[in-house]
Amino acid sequence: MTLGEESLRLHKKLNGKIATKVLIPIKDKHTLSLVYTPGVGEVSKVIASDINKVYDYTIKGHTVAIVSDGSAVLGLGNIGPEAALPVMEGKAALFKTFANLDAFPICLATQDVAEIVKTVGYLAPVFGAINLEDISAPRCFAAEEQLQDLGIPVMHDDQHGTAAVVLAGLLNASKVAGKEMKNLKVVVCGAGAAGFAITQRLISEVREIVVVDSQGIIHTDRNDLNEYKKLIARKTNRNKIVGGLKDALLGADVFVGVSKGGLFLPEYIKLMATRSIIFAMANPIPEIMPDLAKKAGAFIIATGRSDFSNQINNSLAFPGIFKGALQARAIRITGEMKQAAARAIAGLVPNPTIDKIIPDPFEKGLVDAVSKAVAQAWKG
Amino acid sequence: MTLGEESLRLHKKLNGKIATKVLIPIKDKHTLSLVYTPGVGEVSKVIASDINKVYDYTIKGHTVAIVSDGSAVLGLGNIGPEAALPVMEGKAALFKTFANLDAFPICLATQDVAEIVKTVGYLAPVFGAINLEDISAPRCFAAEEQLQDLGIPVMHDDQHGTAAVVLAGLLNASKVAGKEMKNLKVVVCGAGAAGFAITQRLISEVREIVVVDSQGIIHTDRNDLNEYKKLIARKTNRNKIVGGLKDALLGADVFVGVSKGGLFLPEYIKLMATRSIIFAMANPIPEIMPDLAKKAGAFIIATGRSDFSNQINNSLAFPGIFKGALQARAIRITGEMKQAAARAIAGLVPNPTIDKIIPDPFEKGLVDAVSKAVAQAWKG
Repeated sequence: MTLGEESLRLHKKLNGKIATKVLIPIKDKHTLSLVYTPGVGEVSKVIASDINKVYDYTIKGHTVAIVSDGSAVLGLGNIGPEAALPVMEGKAALFKTFANLDAFPICLATQDVAEIVKTVGYLAPVFGAINLEDISAPRCFAAEEQLQDLGIPVMHDDQHGTAAVVLAGLLNASKVAGKEMKNLKVVVCGAGAAGFAITQRLISEVREIVVVDSQGIIHTDRNDLNEYKKLIARKTNRNKIVGGLKDALLGADVFVGVSKGGLFLPEYIKLMATRSIIFAMANPIPEIMPDLAKKAGAFIIATGRSDFSNQINNSLAFPGIFKGALQARAIRITGEMKQAAARAIAGLVPNPTIDKIIPDPFEKGLVDAVSKAVAQAWKG
Repeated sequence: MTLGEESLRLHKKLNGKIATKVLIPIKDKHTLSLVYTPGVGEVSKVIASDINKVYDYTIKGHTVAIVSDGSAVLGLGNIGPEAALPVMEGKAALFKTFANLDAFPICLATQDVAEIVKTVGYLAPVFGAINLEDISAPRCFAAEEQLQDLGIPVMHDDQHGTAAVVLAGLLNASKVAGKEMKNLKVVVCGAGAAGFAITQRLISEVREIVVVDSQGIIHTDRNDLNEYKKLIARKTNRNKIVGGLKDALLGADVFVGVSKGGLFLPEYIKLMATRSIIFAMANPIPEIMPDLAKKAGAFIIATGRSDFSNQINNSLAFPGIFKGALQARAIRITGEMKQAAARAIAGLVPNPTIDKIIPDPFEKGLVDAVSKAVAQAWKG
């Protein structure tokens, strides 16, 4: 039985992966009258007179909406909200398992950014935070931007969760390679949601970043760029190099791939600096398979897959980031909070090696360390 | 400690009443890869190729949205979505406890009917049914009406749950009083959400209904009626009587109050027929207290309160109605289904008495009986 078949069977048997748990067993009329009318009326009155009390008396403070429009689900693309639901349920299960947060999947039957933004605004009273998920670029950037003043943290995890884990991995990988972060030349391949956020996250950490999309190196003279790629063009590639991936890789220390399986050929390694670091994160097939990369001379290789060492997995970041933001009652998740998350994740592996630059999602103390760092980094 | 104080303390201690339960313990990388990527990708693909499979592989088939705009919460009025949240959480707890359905509170930060309708449409992919709750009249009628073609059942419980239980109670009360349903003259006092639905539910069951609102008896010559009250005027009061509550009560067999506490004076009983039936359901203070009504000569008295006998409580209806509709995979909850629910509830008390015309919400077999009857009544 393949993994997919096993997963199908499990989903069918259980009719989904999450359920409601009632925290107060309702066994008699007395508990019924406490949980519901008339007792609950007193709780409603208290909140009506001071809206902030909603955090004390309801689920809001520990509840996260996982909002998707089904437009960019895993590697499957625009498969719609119903087909996105098992993924969002899975994410809710991870929120509970790793961070003890109660998350609920919200798969929307609209892909209009303005409508998504408005709907999330309408839903906000129930939730302590919003996790945007699997919304295609560049729509995801606009949606996230427009929701930053909602009064509760809103984060697109495909962007920032991934970027935080990449930074964490790179902090440790550079250590192992004996290179200083601030001297690194990094090539980011792919300028979608993850590529954009990774670039933003690394920009103040490394010497140089060159971003490559399907049309080649991004530079300011290209006239086919959307506003987000224009921003990348202005902020990266200071030597204004042009050409394709091979041109970008000349002398690079790091390749970060969030693009297409098999796109990185073994001979490209030779173009890079010695002790090269390869994060080949295309899913399910990486830009280059780890064994091929090693054979071709790569020093450190990480992928998005759980069946190789060094899995760059955003399960390392989002549970702690949201938990920390909720604990601090932050109203946004700032750059400082994401940086703090990355450093906390990296810190979980104090003595990194070629085969272990990053912790496991099951690593003890991970979520506590990340949430603490994130909460401390919030300047409210 | 009052009930309200006890309820406040409990809510604060637990931070709300519901939580997420993960159905598959995620203990290692293998379960992680089944629940989430890459295994879940297969599940998404199957649903993408046949959208109806969302019922087999996800939570949809047993998940209900409890949607409120906070405009008519309990007896508290327009207290807003945050203050409504503890009530909706309580309702979710009842859904789980009584029907083993997973419900989630959706408290919307809009009170615009068009926006509510659109938002519920966007949310539909995740839910098997929608329970509209505590939305003020007449907006609730429009919202419910406009959502009837959504493809999943949408029911405003303040209307139809209450109406089904009133019919159930009246079926048994009339038996105890030795009166035939089809000969009853009924006065409905209150023409909001519940009053409108009760009138609709009883209209084909009894001889005559007269509805009274705050301006007096509803009749076709009044020019202050909204479209829903106009409908009531056309369908009730065939003798075109005018005046106030006292005029309506002359010779009536049944008083159904969904209005204001204390509004029914003891001397009114004498205006009614012998063996009068009083459903005084204003909350928390009934139109007349049971002891006063009895003393004044009422034959049967029911209220909305759990501390007197004959509690007309919509917890008797909604768990079974939604369960039955979901089991039948109905796309609407029809009049026939609500009638079937009422008869099933009444049937749980085969030998009714003055003090027991209606079952208890904890009555064994209640939800099974109601859901079965409702599912059978669906003509898909």
